[in-house]
Amino acid sequence: MLSSSPSAIDPYAQPSGSDGLVADYLAELHFRISRLSGGNVATYIPELAKADPKLCGIAIATIDGKTYTAGDADYEFTIQSVSKPFAYGYALERYGREAVLQRVGVEPTGEAFNSIILDEVHNRPFNPMVNAGAIAIAETIKGATGEERAETMLTLFSRLAGRRLSIDEAVFRSEQQTGHRNRAIAYMMLNSGMIRGVPEDILDVYFRQCSVRVTCRDLAVMAATLANDGVNPLTGERAIAAEFVADVLTVMNTCGMYNYAGQWSYDVGIPAKSGVAGSILAVIPGQLGIAVFSPPIDQHGNSVRGVAACKEIAQDFRLNIFRSHVSTATAIRRELHGDVIHSKRARNPPERKLLKETGRRICLVEVQGPLFFGSAERLIRRIGEIDPRPSHMILDFRRVPYADEAACKLLARLATSFVEEGRRLLVTHLGQDSSLAPLRATFEDILPGQIFDHRDAALELCENAIIAEAGISYDATRFALAELDIFKGLAREDLKLLEMLARPMVFEAGDRIIRAGDPALLFFVVARGTVTVELPDRGTGQTLRLASMGPGLTFGEMALLDGGRRSADVVASERVVCYGFSVEAIHDLGRTAPHILTTIYANMMRDFSERLRRANEEIRALEH
Amino acid sequence: MLSSSPSAIDPYAQPSGSDGLVADYLAELHFRISRLSGGNVATYIPELAKADPKLCGIAIATIDGKTYTAGDADYEFTIQSVSKPFAYGYALERYGREAVLQRVGVEPTGEAFNSIILDEVHNRPFNPMVNAGAIAIAETIKGATGEERAETMLTLFSRLAGRRLSIDEAVFRSEQQTGHRNRAIAYMMLNSGMIRGVPEDILDVYFRQCSVRVTCRDLAVMAATLANDGVNPLTGERAIAAEFVADVLTVMNTCGMYNYAGQWSYDVGIPAKSGVAGSILAVIPGQLGIAVFSPPIDQHGNSVRGVAACKEIAQDFRLNIFRSHVSTATAIRRELHGDVIHSKRARNPPERKLLKETGRRICLVEVQGPLFFGSAERLIRRIGEIDPRPSHMILDFRRVPYADEAACKLLARLATSFVEEGRRLLVTHLGQDSSLAPLRATFEDILPGQIFDHRDAALELCENAIIAEAGISYDATRFALAELDIFKGLAREDLKLLEMLARPMVFEAGDRIIRAGDPALLFFVVARGTVTVELPDRGTGQTLRLASMGPGLTFGEMALLDGGRRSADVVASERVVCYGFSVEAIHDLGRTAPHILTTIYANMMRDFSERLRRANEEIRALEH
Repeated sequence: MLSSSPSAIDPYAQPSGSDGLVADYLAELHFRISRLSGGNVATYIPELAKADPKLCGIAIATIDGKTYTAGDADYEFTIQSVSKPFAYGYALERYGREAVLQRVGVEPTGEAFNSIILDEVHNRPFNPMVNAGAIAIAETIKGATGEERAETMLTLFSRLAGRRLSIDEAVFRSEQQTGHRNRAIAYMMLNSGMIRGVPEDILDVYFRQCSVRVTCRDLAVMAATLANDGVNPLTGERAIAAEFVADVLTVMNTCGMYNYAGQWSYDVGIPAKSGVAGSILAVIPGQLGIAVFSPPIDQHGNSVRGVAACKEIAQDFRLNIFRSHVSTATAIRRELHGDVIHSKRARNPPERKLLKETGRRICLVEVQGPLFFGSAERLIRRIGEIDPRPSHMILDFRRVPYADEAACKLLARLATSFVEEGRRLLVTHLGQDSSLAPLRATFEDILPGQIFDHRDAALELCENAIIAEAGISYDATRFALAELDIFKGLAREDLKLLEMLARPMVFEAGDRIIRAGDPALLFFVVARGTVTVELPDRGTGQTLRLASMGPGLTFGEMALLDGGRRSADVVASERVVCYGFSVEAIHDLGRTAPHILTTIYANMMRDFSERLRRANEEIRALEH
Repeated sequence: MLSSSPSAIDPYAQPSGSDGLVADYLAELHFRISRLSGGNVATYIPELAKADPKLCGIAIATIDGKTYTAGDADYEFTIQSVSKPFAYGYALERYGREAVLQRVGVEPTGEAFNSIILDEVHNRPFNPMVNAGAIAIAETIKGATGEERAETMLTLFSRLAGRRLSIDEAVFRSEQQTGHRNRAIAYMMLNSGMIRGVPEDILDVYFRQCSVRVTCRDLAVMAATLANDGVNPLTGERAIAAEFVADVLTVMNTCGMYNYAGQWSYDVGIPAKSGVAGSILAVIPGQLGIAVFSPPIDQHGNSVRGVAACKEIAQDFRLNIFRSHVSTATAIRRELHGDVIHSKRARNPPERKLLKETGRRICLVEVQGPLFFGSAERLIRRIGEIDPRPSHMILDFRRVPYADEAACKLLARLATSFVEEGRRLLVTHLGQDSSLAPLRATFEDILPGQIFDHRDAALELCENAIIAEAGISYDATRFALAELDIFKGLAREDLKLLEMLARPMVFEAGDRIIRAGDPALLFFVVARGTVTVELPDRGTGQTLRLASMGPGLTFGEMALLDGGRRSADVVASERVVCYGFSVEAIHDLGRTAPHILTTIYANMMRDFSERLRRANEEIRALEH
């Protein structure tokens, strides 16, 4: 019975803040686990027999690089068989799946780790997690000399752990001097042609590979690297090609715990690998890596405390792969229609009316979460059900972290069906994140010119198409003041007075018509072209478009209130013809004809009230 | 070599619309797969030997009840060993994990399905997927007579398939007459005490269980029921308790394909079960169920075309469990602060200024996606990092489909840490969905009174707390008109004229002060209490709060513009004292003193402009 761990932490010490929640848990778990008895320190390698049985460390590393530890998590020991999955990943990357599969199978044996039984039917070791298979894999490690091979292997392991690792020479020599059973296995394999090289050379790199010094924290990071599709979460460096990570995890899952694999799957349900020095490494794909180290091992060669800790963690955190939490339910964040959401392009009343009435022909779907078969199928099915059938469909991918091949295929078919049906499909926000590059490439082929960085531009394009189709756009170079909202309700003689105040002005594309902070002396009516109201966006450093105005629309009218200052820039988007009205002149007019001013104010207020109503409607839509 | 399937579909027939995308795929796959040769129809049960080797069907069922099929998907055949996982699930549910584990192990054998080798160490069959284990499981089926036991089993299978199933009597009799090897296994087990009942009785229910007639479509739905945590996606009925689904999948994964399990995991990587009549059922948890049926089987007893089809589907759709798509990256939908988002409660200028300046003390986090260890850990960690540290934290769970035990535990710790630190944590939208009941219960213990149906109420509470703390609320029963925004800038003598127009009015809680559609004759200033502007929500049938106003704020002021009609209801939320101003009287005043009207209009416009600016800011925040 072990009474306490050498580094027993005070279970009542509460790390503070949210960081403490998981750290607390691990501390409590460690407190209990480190007191467990049972098992014996491995003795078949003399150097391992010296290990202190009281040592006990636990570490968790997340795929975004956070590590939590308890106990002896920074104590160094030799990696032993935990090295096998990584060497296997290396072999797959170097020689490809088929070539490796010919040399080493993937079938569990039901035999012990050091079994000498080989797959006679296929003339190969059963799998790369038993010693025979691992020795055959060790032959694939590149290098002309033993030193070069050791360096290749160390470089790989160091990249996985995120720090430079080294070999424990004492353990290496001890393994080399006493590893006769492994020698027998190697010669058996040489005899049947399963290996071709000099057994001592292969065993040299194999023993070195088993003698790499790691800590529990290192192993958690190595596990998190697998959980993170092969990219080390601490360094951001790729250690294993993503396409082979699933193969490594599969073999860990079926063969990693030897003849305890079935019960381990049942009790823990996480791909894992144990090492005879007393460590267990476990991987929860897409989430985290776990490592436990404590020397006493059971009859299967698995750390007693390691198994117990993994069982508890898996149960407490529901990490079993079949209690996993993929869900296709949330692929659509929300659907918005063009009658409620609008581009920043201001519209005149007939345009507004048209979009209010027919805007449901525009549908914007915010897609969210990773796209894989289940979520993409559901997304596409939902798009087919949207009623009424939108003639303009915008897919906003801003919240999609990645789309796999299956999703790209399904979305390619969707895009093709839109093209064939003569409906328009626009896609946005595929840009920055390189993980969406395959999806972008898919769409570039099928939807040239329909890919936008921001949805505002896509929305405006759809609105413009609907307005153009209805034929209600107008060019107001020769416009009557009575047509303008702001002058509505004024008598003919009032309009004549105002007409005399209108000053025609021309601006070229890019001209700054109004500058934020300047005194507000004029208000404007656009006759031709488009102006954009914009502000610098403090967040991105880019320019934020607040609104655009075309012919028949006014801007800068807040100037009428009093001698305030401009609150934003207004820039000519193209060549612009507009009419400027001096605020002072209008106020002078108001003094002799007050109803002109009150009518203009009332019109502005109606406009503001309407814009406010629409903004609130949009807020309600966006909140849902 | 088989030349064509009896139901060969036209590969060029394109089902239209989005439904066709997956249907097309299956049709193309079926076209290729149905032409594959190899394997033989099972002969050891004479009745099975009659099967047409050309038959070939494929079906996919999603967890939301959509099925896609190709080929002979509605042809009936006997379920055979595909029944085993479901009977195992039944046994777990009836007797519990421990009791069943004592009778039947979970370790793969590396032996054939009809192996007579038993686990002598534990005195039990190795696992419930080999015949020995399945016979031991058949003994657990409830019933006093053979008929009752058969009915228990049929009821279960029918619930899984979503339609009433029946037994193929001819196959049943054929199995009964020739199943001598199974008899031998049963007697071996009786001999060692692994079963206790009469072997013939147990075999009777076992043979019937194997003789249940199903179609490929049925099997896909049964698989989807497992994928959907035990609830049949067609009927919504629970068929297996959720807590045992993972156990069933685990044993399918390690033992479902017999001594082909390792290679199957490697090539396909989906928990599956094959039956000797030529069917394979595969489960992708949280996504879908797949079934393939085609009689020719290989030396492991697995359908040749079934294995080929599953390989292709798994590869094309990337369904391998270790290529799965759990991601912790999207647990937070967005973070919003109280300086940008506001409750519907209108605020007076000093309150608005305060909230603008100190509103970042309020933080609202929209949580999204399922909460499990990885996502909850990330959510909690992020909450700890929010800078500045919010004194009022609102968690909106509207987009969380469920939270597992691990997430509940972590969130309980989070809530406790807020309580201990004297910070406020409010939670919203835990209500309707019963899948969030455990989370609701967790919070009810720790955060009594902090659970809200909607976030608007939670936001208002936080704002009120900050305003109360600053001591700037005021009671305006005795207010000066000059303090009101709407009269700002008017001279003392103008205010005196207005004061004479103010008519004090009292309303009781629930009184409708303004009714939508009525003519607008008055505008109001609140002196005491709160009024709510509301509209019926066409979507939900409930009432939608547009705004609330307290002392010092005005409502109904659009009446000033002209004789329009009210656009919404205004209701007294409690006892309300307010002052009504006749619009007509103010217009009369405006005729003699026009500057009074223009000043009021300009003030209103400033207010509207400010509200519009804030609304646009909120839209920008909500869009991100």
